[in-house]
Amino acid sequence: MSEPVNKDRAESGRVEAFSDGVFAIAITLLVLELHAPDDKHGLWHGLIHDEWPQFAAYLTSFAIIGIMWVNHHSMFSSIIRIDRPLLFLNLFLLLWMSLLPFPTSLVAKYLDHGGTNAAVAEAIYGANLTLAAIAFSLIWMRAVRGGRLTGVPMARRAEWAAIGRFSVGTFVYAATIGLAFAYAPAALAVQFLLAVYYAFEQITA
Amino acid sequence: MSEPVNKDRAESGRVEAFSDGVFAIAITLLVLELHAPDDKHGLWHGLIHDEWPQFAAYLTSFAIIGIMWVNHHSMFSSIIRIDRPLLFLNLFLLLWMSLLPFPTSLVAKYLDHGGTNAAVAEAIYGANLTLAAIAFSLIWMRAVRGGRLTGVPMARRAEWAAIGRFSVGTFVYAATIGLAFAYAPAALAVQFLLAVYYAFEQITA
Amino acid sequence: MSEPVNKDRAESGRVEAFSDGVFAIAITLLVLELHAPDDKHGLWHGLIHDEWPQFAAYLTSFAIIGIMWVNHHSMFSSIIRIDRPLLFLNLFLLLWMSLLPFPTSLVAKYLDHGGTNAAVAEAIYGANLTLAAIAFSLIWMRAVRGGRLTGVPMARRAEWAAIGRFSVGTFVYAATIGLAFAYAPAALAVQFLLAVYYAFEQITA
Amino acid sequence: MSEPVNKDRAESGRVEAFSDGVFAIAITLLVLELHAPDDKHGLWHGLIHDEWPQFAAYLTSFAIIGIMWVNHHSMFSSIIRIDRPLLFLNLFLLLWMSLLPFPTSLVAKYLDHGGTNAAVAEAIYGANLTLAAIAFSLIWMRAVRGGRLTGVPMARRAEWAAIGRFSVGTFVYAATIGLAFAYAPAALAVQFLLAVYYAFEQITA
Repeated sequence: MSEPVNKDRAESGRVEAFSDGVFAIAITLLVLELHAPDDKHGLWHGLIHDEWPQFAAYLTSFAIIGIMWVNHHSMFSSIIRIDRPLLFLNLFLLLWMSLLPFPTSLVAKYLDHGGTNAAVAEAIYGANLTLAAIAFSLIWMRAVRGGRLTGVPMARRAEWAAIGRFSVGTFVYAATIGLAFAYAPAALAVQFLLAVYYAFEQITA
Repeated sequence: MSEPVNKDRAESGRVEAFSDGVFAIAITLLVLELHAPDDKHGLWHGLIHDEWPQFAAYLTSFAIIGIMWVNHHSMFSSIIRIDRPLLFLNLFLLLWMSLLPFPTSLVAKYLDHGGTNAAVAEAIYGANLTLAAIAFSLIWMRAVRGGRLTGVPMARRAEWAAIGRFSVGTFVYAATIGLAFAYAPAALAVQFLLAVYYAFEQITA
Repeated sequence: MSEPVNKDRAESGRVEAFSDGVFAIAITLLVLELHAPDDKHGLWHGLIHDEWPQFAAYLTSFAIIGIMWVNHHSMFSSIIRIDRPLLFLNLFLLLWMSLLPFPTSLVAKYLDHGGTNAAVAEAIYGANLTLAAIAFSLIWMRAVRGGRLTGVPMARRAEWAAIGRFSVGTFVYAATIGLAFAYAPAALAVQFLLAVYYAFEQITA
Repeated sequence: MSEPVNKDRAESGRVEAFSDGVFAIAITLLVLELHAPDDKHGLWHGLIHDEWPQFAAYLTSFAIIGIMWVNHHSMFSSIIRIDRPLLFLNLFLLLWMSLLPFPTSLVAKYLDHGGTNAAVAEAIYGANLTLAAIAFSLIWMRAVRGGRLTGVPMARRAEWAAIGRFSVGTFVYAATIGLAFAYAPAALAVQFLLAVYYAFEQITA
């Protein structure tokens, strides 16, 4: 295996910098969806009673973007060559990351309405997460298999293990789309717990 | 040709970092123009029936800023010396990138109104894209020809080919300004497709 | 002690870059909570008479995020190895940094209402700062003691002195939660002065 | 003069990165102050007739932040050592940069109201610029004289010339505070032209 040339390193660096920017901005913009309540029944009552969905949604999205950043970080620290397809797969991931504040605001607004609107809001949120998880898998497959962009060839077994772990996430997120129509808050709870799981379970060995 | 000194590398690095910041922020701020619909007719109906223009505009602007970032990235990876005119041409490009969320919001708001307002919104959007494309050409001309800032001298032919490819983009974007007055949604579709085209057609050989 | 490998340096660099992004965005988003007053009694009167709490809250949050960035910077310049727990402790700190604009907006809106609402707004603001200070201590403890991630072993005494200085901050911030219920503007003043104190008193020797 | 150690380089790099972040975010957030007009008299009429002040203010602030970034860039490319006072002077500059979108929104809202409100809005805008210019001078003085942080000692003459050029800017910005009370649009025009002047006149020789 040849030593990666400096230019590749620099390109990888700039992709990481741009991605870090998008992750950092998306995670910080979430706060703009939090609104100070009116003081009809007092501030404390307004925050706890009327606005709990916006905090639940905020925390879940923060955890998800944060953990996806950590894993993006792990993944790209083993990618040493960037090709154009990888750039666009990465953009595809960033699309779902930077869009996430919108479904978050839908959940924040509609979760305690119950009924179809709560289900639709949560299902859209779950769909966004599923698409992000798919984007993640595609980047990893491109890097490890198609493009051999990682420098260090992975053992067949480790490769499949990593892809397996991604797939689990993708299927769980996809399942929450259905769960949303049964009971929307449960779907949000599963999404949050999956993020916590990914915090402890490293994707790339 | 002499080896570029480290200081030039560092300066180029900081221009790229600032540019990446502006691209990353502009692409992520687009989400703030997406608004949760009222629930008069239900959330799903509101999203699909009333708010499709905001999703069409979001996706188009995301694609355009994303691809312009990829191409900015390609362009600056072959620029190794930065002079002051290049800094200001780059600022001129960043002006149109960071302004883009505003015409995007005009299109999101007015595209389904039809009539003159839809046309004006789309034409302003097209004008913004045209000016961004012109800024791109000016940066490239300065880098390749005037300032010889690329280190590797390009063949005359490759130079003209690159400039030719830029010009096509500029003319197509300019043409959408006129098309907007014929049928505004068609103009938006052309702008989206041109972005997709640029994703597959690399500007700098 | 072995020389840290380049990869650790690079990882530390990317954590710093992501953190810098979140700090920079949070500090700059604060401005979005400042609203132009109506001109019922004239602009000047509106700004001075009705909107002083939003400027007091803005300045305090700017000072706090700014100084926390400076100290984060000092802290990470002596951390040369990043492990996964440190990544998540850092995320925990970034959570409170990127959430801060929300309690800031509560203080801006409710501080001059007096009564329970002013107290609750200020207490929530104080709770956010306390949690940020705790996160800071946890990062430092992990880096210095648990994980020995700093490369240069600190003297026992210097270590404790640094932890002591953190604890003071944490307790003072916690005390402002109580103070808020006595007199909310005094709590905000103490929070501002503590930030100024930290500007002059370096945390990491 | 000894060679600066790598650690100083790295610290200078992180200050630049954080500053770049704040500059990039502030310049991009300006777009959020642009609002799509209502369609009472048609979109085009609304944009040109009612909203020209918001475009004038946007363009002026974009030019000012952009040029200040370019000059910050020039300045820090000759600063090789960072000390704590410099960090805080830099934060003081970033305060005025990240606050600028607020006075920009005041000018956008009140410039065409005429009378005292237009004057107050413009004067506050001018005061913000004056304070930013003062912060710039203080950074430069600290770097060149007090702290000798530039590595290359400047000739006495060049030093004074640079400080002279800064002072001119500071005085012109201060003068626009007064001019605002005579004719507010003229004050905005002078502020814009001064930014253009600084684009052509490099501050640090």
